[in-house]
Amino acid sequence: MSRTLHLNAFLMGVGHHEAAWRHPGTEPVRLTDVRHYQELARIAERGGLDSVFLADGVALSGDVRHNALGGLEPLTLLAALAAVTDHIGLIATVSTTYHEPFHVARKFASLDHISGGRAGWNIVTSAGEAEARNFGVERPAHATRYARAAEFLEVVTKLWDSWEDGAVLADRAAGRYADAGRIHPIDHAGDHFSVAGPLNTSRSPQGHPLLVQAGSSEDGKEFAARHAEAVFTAQQTLREGQEFYADLKRRLPAHGRRPEDLLVLPGISPIIGSTEREAHALEKELEELLIPAYGLAQLSRMTGLELTEEHLDGPLPDVPAENEGAQSRRRLVVDLARRERLTVRELIARLAGGRGHRVFAGTPEQIADQLQEWFLCGAADGFNIMPPLLPGGLADFVDHVVPELRVRGLFRHEYEGRTLREHYGLPRPPSRYATTRPEPVAVS
Amino acid sequence: MSRTLHLNAFLMGVGHHEAAWRHPGTEPVRLTDVRHYQELARIAERGGLDSVFLADGVALSGDVRHNALGGLEPLTLLAALAAVTDHIGLIATVSTTYHEPFHVARKFASLDHISGGRAGWNIVTSAGEAEARNFGVERPAHATRYARAAEFLEVVTKLWDSWEDGAVLADRAAGRYADAGRIHPIDHAGDHFSVAGPLNTSRSPQGHPLLVQAGSSEDGKEFAARHAEAVFTAQQTLREGQEFYADLKRRLPAHGRRPEDLLVLPGISPIIGSTEREAHALEKELEELLIPAYGLAQLSRMTGLELTEEHLDGPLPDVPAENEGAQSRRRLVVDLARRERLTVRELIARLAGGRGHRVFAGTPEQIADQLQEWFLCGAADGFNIMPPLLPGGLADFVDHVVPELRVRGLFRHEYEGRTLREHYGLPRPPSRYATTRPEPVAVS
Repeated sequence: MSRTLHLNAFLMGVGHHEAAWRHPGTEPVRLTDVRHYQELARIAERGGLDSVFLADGVALSGDVRHNALGGLEPLTLLAALAAVTDHIGLIATVSTTYHEPFHVARKFASLDHISGGRAGWNIVTSAGEAEARNFGVERPAHATRYARAAEFLEVVTKLWDSWEDGAVLADRAAGRYADAGRIHPIDHAGDHFSVAGPLNTSRSPQGHPLLVQAGSSEDGKEFAARHAEAVFTAQQTLREGQEFYADLKRRLPAHGRRPEDLLVLPGISPIIGSTEREAHALEKELEELLIPAYGLAQLSRMTGLELTEEHLDGPLPDVPAENEGAQSRRRLVVDLARRERLTVRELIARLAGGRGHRVFAGTPEQIADQLQEWFLCGAADGFNIMPPLLPGGLADFVDHVVPELRVRGLFRHEYEGRTLREHYGLPRPPSRYATTRPEPVAVS
Repeated sequence: MSRTLHLNAFLMGVGHHEAAWRHPGTEPVRLTDVRHYQELARIAERGGLDSVFLADGVALSGDVRHNALGGLEPLTLLAALAAVTDHIGLIATVSTTYHEPFHVARKFASLDHISGGRAGWNIVTSAGEAEARNFGVERPAHATRYARAAEFLEVVTKLWDSWEDGAVLADRAAGRYADAGRIHPIDHAGDHFSVAGPLNTSRSPQGHPLLVQAGSSEDGKEFAARHAEAVFTAQQTLREGQEFYADLKRRLPAHGRRPEDLLVLPGISPIIGSTEREAHALEKELEELLIPAYGLAQLSRMTGLELTEEHLDGPLPDVPAENEGAQSRRRLVVDLARRERLTVRELIARLAGGRGHRVFAGTPEQIADQLQEWFLCGAADGFNIMPPLLPGGLADFVDHVVPELRVRGLFRHEYEGRTLREHYGLPRPPSRYATTRPEPVAVS
């Protein structure tokens, strides 16, 4: 099969649109109901999608008065989704700033075992102030967070490698459960971590659960070029998408990697209608359910401005330059406002669908056109699909857009592999500690 | 119903006996196979047991050449078991020494949501040296570990309380998702932790997942008397069991608690046969599969001695007094050896079944007699059942011992509640932050 799309279902509560929970097509009390997420995973699997993906933060951020917040921890949830699915990949976000690498290595190895090789880790470094306050520390500087992330990843992958393939013998007659020569301490001693190893969970089906990254800052792009196997990104226009794609792929050879070793997957929130009129009516309906105070607070947080109702019908004020948090997302928001000369109210509406990710309303064919154009014009290897309403928006995508993509030869008709790495067309890494000595003959 | 037993299935790989993995009744390759544990959970649920329980440590400890080690992380695994069961409680061991309370609070709250109120936390403080080396620290002293554990628990329960019941309104028409006045920062600042809160997962079905504890040192017993709702313990004789039971219950009033607020659950490994002869034959069969080198290493670690093959047929040498690790388990082992005048070889065989927990071989009636005696004579409120072989030993217990206990009026015929707290007959704690002000009328 020639090059085809990779599609993830980015699951977020009852939908990505900020007003999703107010729409009659959702049930906001299902935010903490595992059956809701199991239904979503089954829908995504019915469509042959590569994975379901869960974002995360380690603080209650955003105004809970006006949005459906307070859901489930992703790794725990994905284990419960693994139990009711067979093929779909399971990607969880976990921060390197507020965790210990031993625990993270073990949990992902466990999820990979439990799911038969479907686990992926979206590596984030936690830019938020509120997150730091839940761990009794000052928020570390951007460069410090990325330095810690790089060493964290080194420790985690060493732990994943600490049991070679073939270490488990399970030779009952000889009384040899494992070949201790194939299980290695890692003896890591670095600036941030000192970890003896080995891991106390054996090597998992994928060897390494898949490594995903989403930062778009300079540090983020370098980290991705060095370590990530898939990058989630927010890009508003085809030209920006192409630039980001080319930039990232260009960085790979310096790290001994080929362009196909890293998939670039922009987010898109498809607002789907059987007709254009229906799609735009749904978009408008969601917009009318927005709560201005919530949008103002969100936009204030993104930009570092203090926006009030008085700003709603004017242009976005100038944004201070020094805020060192989520820089790349802030630039995207300012560029969008300036490029399209949006008022603050209009900008809030534009951001409400995807928090800076692209939103596109149209028929299934029009959405397929958009995905195809970005895919063929060097802006994407696939997409993170962010349905405005869940489960309805995901079911619409799977039932109406996926068949159109299949007709065009752009997407698989059924799963060809079992693991997330196989879905993504990525190799299974060997253990860095792999020995080549022959296995001694078992004697009893 | 009058006072009845509480029974947990303590799951450990393919069985609690150290030679389980060598027995033809097990499949050691299933150590990392989620379907194995799902089968066990279903068997336990078929028997109406209170919970399945998973022990844990955060290092590869024990000799992996000779025992089936390297399994799955308990919290991740239990989420996958929640997905295929409806009633059985799910108790995971997590250490307070090498985790952050925010993550632990969130994961247990998530598991409690996912399971509909069936989560329990076995709180341990990680006595091992190898564990400390995976986190770049010196192993903290016993008292330090328990001081940290107490503050850890305070933070976790504050976070569980940070969303009051009723905080989620999901009032679409009024645009009010939650009542922010019922979601509280915890602003904890103590010796070990500084945590702002609130949790970013809403209050879970049980309010607090059940708190379980297993330490039997003086610090451990005080911790249990203050905080725990169930205690797992290793007791070899009825008299020791009675002493421990009375000791623990006696400590409760000083903390404003009643005897029935804390369940005492000794471990027992039942080796079941249709006849006594069958039971003893199975015990003997397992003993013959033991690997002496493994038992010597285990016993050396427990006692702080350096035991070799030369010691096998003599008595246990004197044990140095200073080893400050698992003191209570060491004393138990020494007492057992002295009381029954065991050789080192015999002691190893006795410990191989339950690592210091009681092992009893007999018919279903005889096992029921033992459980009944301890239950009625003030040594137990129930038991942690540790089958020598899994799944077979658990199925035998559920199919042959449980019916006998039911006939005697000692065990439930079916589940009467849905949550683990309901199975244990324990109340659902209110939020410490609960407000009594009336909810304002929603206006749109």
